This record gives sequence, C-alpha cells and structure tokens, in this order.
Amino acid sequence: MADIWLPSLITDTPQAGFELAITLSRKGVRYTQSDPEVLKKLRPAYAEDADALIASSQVVAINFQTIAAANDYWRK
Amino acid sequence: MADIWLPSLITDTPQAGFELAITLSRKGVRYTQSDPEVLKKLRPAYAEDADALIASSQVVAINFQTIAAANDYWRK
Amino acid sequence: MADIWLPSLITDTPQAGFELAITLSRKGVRYTQSDPEVLKKLRPAYAEDADALIASSQVVAINFQTIAAANDYWRK
Amino acid sequence: MADIWLPSLITDTPQAGFELAITLSRKGVRYTQSDPEVLKKLRPAYAEDADALIASSQVVAINFQTIAAANDYWRK
Amino acid sequence: MADIWLPSLITDTPQAGFELAITLSRKGVRYTQSDPEVLKKLRPAYAEDADALIASSQVVAINFQTIAAANDYWRK
Amino acid sequence: MADIWLPSLITDTPQAGFELAITLSRKGVRYTQSDPEVLKKLRPAYAEDADALIASSQVVAINFQTIAAANDYWRK
Repeated sequence: MADIWLPSLITDTPQAGFELAITLSRKGVRYTQSDPEVLKKLRPAYAEDADALIASSQVVAINFQTIAAANDYWRK
Repeated sequence: MADIWLPSLITDTPQAGFELAITLSRKGVRYTQSDPEVLKKLRPAYAEDADALIASSQVVAINFQTIAAANDYWRK
Repeated sequence: MADIWLPSLITDTPQAGFELAITLSRKGVRYTQSDPEVLKKLRPAYAEDADALIASSQVVAINFQTIAAANDYWRK
Repeated sequence: MADIWLPSLITDTPQAGFELAITLSRKGVRYTQSDPEVLKKLRPAYAEDADALIASSQVVAINFQTIAAANDYWRK
Repeated sequence: MADIWLPSLITDTPQAGFELAITLSRKGVRYTQSDPEVLKKLRPAYAEDADALIASSQVVAINFQTIAAANDYWRK
Repeated sequence: MADIWLPSLITDTPQAGFELAITLSRKGVRYTQSDPEVLKKLRPAYAEDADALIASSQVVAINFQTIAAANDYWRK
C-alpha cells in the first residue's frame, strides 16, 4: 500500500466527511483482506444481511466521530 | 449520491439532533446497500428482531454523540 | 413523532442523567420499530436473554457518555 | 427505583472509579430486567460464557471512560 | 477485592499504557467471573476463536482510549 | 514482550496514523493469543468472513480515534 489514500482528515462539508468515514471503514477491511477477488465474493453475503449492514453503519459512525472532531464539526 | 443530504450538524434542539443521528445511521446502511428493493426486503427481518433493534439503537447513540458535541450539547 | 420528548440533555443529578440515557436508548429502538404491539411481543425474548441485556446496557453506557459530558459530569 | 444509587461520578481513586463503572454496567441491565429471580437464573449462563464475559467487560470499559473523564483521570 | 491493583492511570510510555489497557480489560472480566478455575476452563475456547479475539482487542482499544487521554497521549 | 513496539503515538501523516491503528488492533489480539501457529491457523477463517472483517475494521476505527486525537488530527 505505497500510494497515498489519506492525505488529510479535513473536508469541505459534513457530507464529504461522512463519505471519508466510509472510505476509512472500507480501508479497515482491506488492510485485513487485500485480495479483491475474496472481497468481491463476500460482498453479496453482507450487503444483503441486516446484521452486517448495521455493523458496517456502526464502523462508519465511529470513523465519522473522528473526522467530525478533526473538522471542528464544520461549525464555522 | 450527488444530492446534498447533510449540509450541517447543527440543529435547533436535542430532539432534532437525535433525529439527525437516525438519518446518519440509515445513510451508513445505504452507502453499503443502495438498492431500495433489497433494503425493503430486509426491513421486516431486523425490525422484528430484538438484537438488530438494539444494534440499530447503538449506531444511533454513537452518531448522537457526534451531533451533540457539534451542538455543544445545546447548553446555551 | 410530533411531541417533544427531549427538550434538554441537562439533568439535576447523575442518576437522572442515567435514566435519561435509558430513555434515549429506548427511543433509538422505537424510531426503527414504532409498533407497540411488536415491541411488546419482542420484550420477553430480550429481557430474558443475557446477550441482549448486556447489549442494551452498552447502548445505555454510550448514551450516558453523551449526557454526562453535556452536564460537565455534574462536577459543580 | 426511588432510591439514590448514583449521587456522584467522583471517586477517590481510579480503582474506585472502575468499581463504579461496574455498578453502572449492572444497573444498565437491571433497568431492562428488574426481576432478581430472572437475573439470578441468567447469571450462570453468561458468567461461564466467554463471549458474554468479553461483552460485559466492554460495557465496563465504556462506563469507565465516562467516570475517568469526570474525575479528570485522577491526575492531581 | 481488597487489594490495590489500579493506583494510577499514568504510565511512562504508550506501550506501558497499552499493557495497562489489557489489565483493565481482564479485570472487567474477573469482576463478573472471579473463579480462576472457570476462567482457566474458558481460556482455550476464546483464545482460539477469531471472533472472541477480535472482541477482546476491541475492549483493549476502548480502555486504551481512556489511558491515552489520561496521559495526554504521552505528547511531552 | 520485552521489545519496544510502541514508542510513540505521533505519526507524520493521517495515513501513517491509520496504519499504526492497525498495528494496535493486531497487538490487542496477540496479547491474548501469542502463539503464531494458532494465529496463522485462524487467519483464513476470519479473513474470509464478512462479520469478522467488519469487526476488525471497527477495532481499527476505535484505535484510529485515539491516534488521531494524539496527533491533534494532523491539523497543522
């Protein structure tokens, strides 16, 4: 993973921050399972499983806490 | 997802903040599974499952932490 | 849900804050499953299941973090 | 639950704070299931189950975050 | 549990803080199940179970948040 | 574990911080199961299991919160 995929936690808008939280959540998976073939095979299993979707949404929520704090909640 | 659904984390009241936390939790699911037909099919399965309801409530709680902090807990 | 059930996060005592955390946790469930009949049917299943009780206690703990911070931990 | 069981989050030592975190975790369970007979019946099931013990330890960890912050981490 | 096992959250290094987080996580388990014979019996079951290992690592991560904050992230 | 593997939480970039979060998550596992043979045997089981991958990603997210705060979110 030599390429730069996370140059900054700062985003212009809350929505861009939420999308970055999704990127972080997916990267967390990919560092453990880097084979795109395996990931592709797993995808239908969890994208149609309510428990897995809720668990994914929880990881996004945790990463969004970090990004929102980094951006001082886009208050200004 | 070109439309703007999260212009700000600021809400007028704690209750509006809690409702925004619910929106964020649902969006976290929809970024993973965007097909409304699949989501509709899954809904009865988790809306009548105690574990899934508690897990959903947990994601809401995490997102509410973020929104409450953003609003300085509506202290003023 | 037009009625106001969360006018403030401020409580007089830590114990009242903990009870508000329980209210928030239950509301998180009710926004997903609003039918009181279904909720009533599910209750015995999770109130007598150790895993579900621990999971519920976890949601309360997360909401209590938010409320305790809002009240500056009732330090004064 | 008219009696006062949580007058303050402040404790003299980190260890007393950790023990208060355990009290909070148990209270979170008891607000959902208040029947001592049911709780007694469930206890062996989760006290001898590794997953339930780890989950309990997680709730304690979350409550300890709150109490440690309330006590400014007993730094002074 | 009359003995003092947590006199302070302050450690000299991040690594010592991480090890203290592990101690806290184990103590959280022992307050629920204090019988060393039962704990010994459970150990192989979870130490060779991927889900339990990940869950344990999560409790450590939560406790490490607390200890790292207490130490101001060992910044100085 | 006499060697020093965590001298600091400070990293040059957010991405290096994310990678350190992965290291912390793995260390949390290794303190519970230190036998590399067992870990090797478990790896395929969870690296091809969607739930375990999401759970791993959650631990990384929690550790990244700590590291991001330590680095003041790499704001400067």
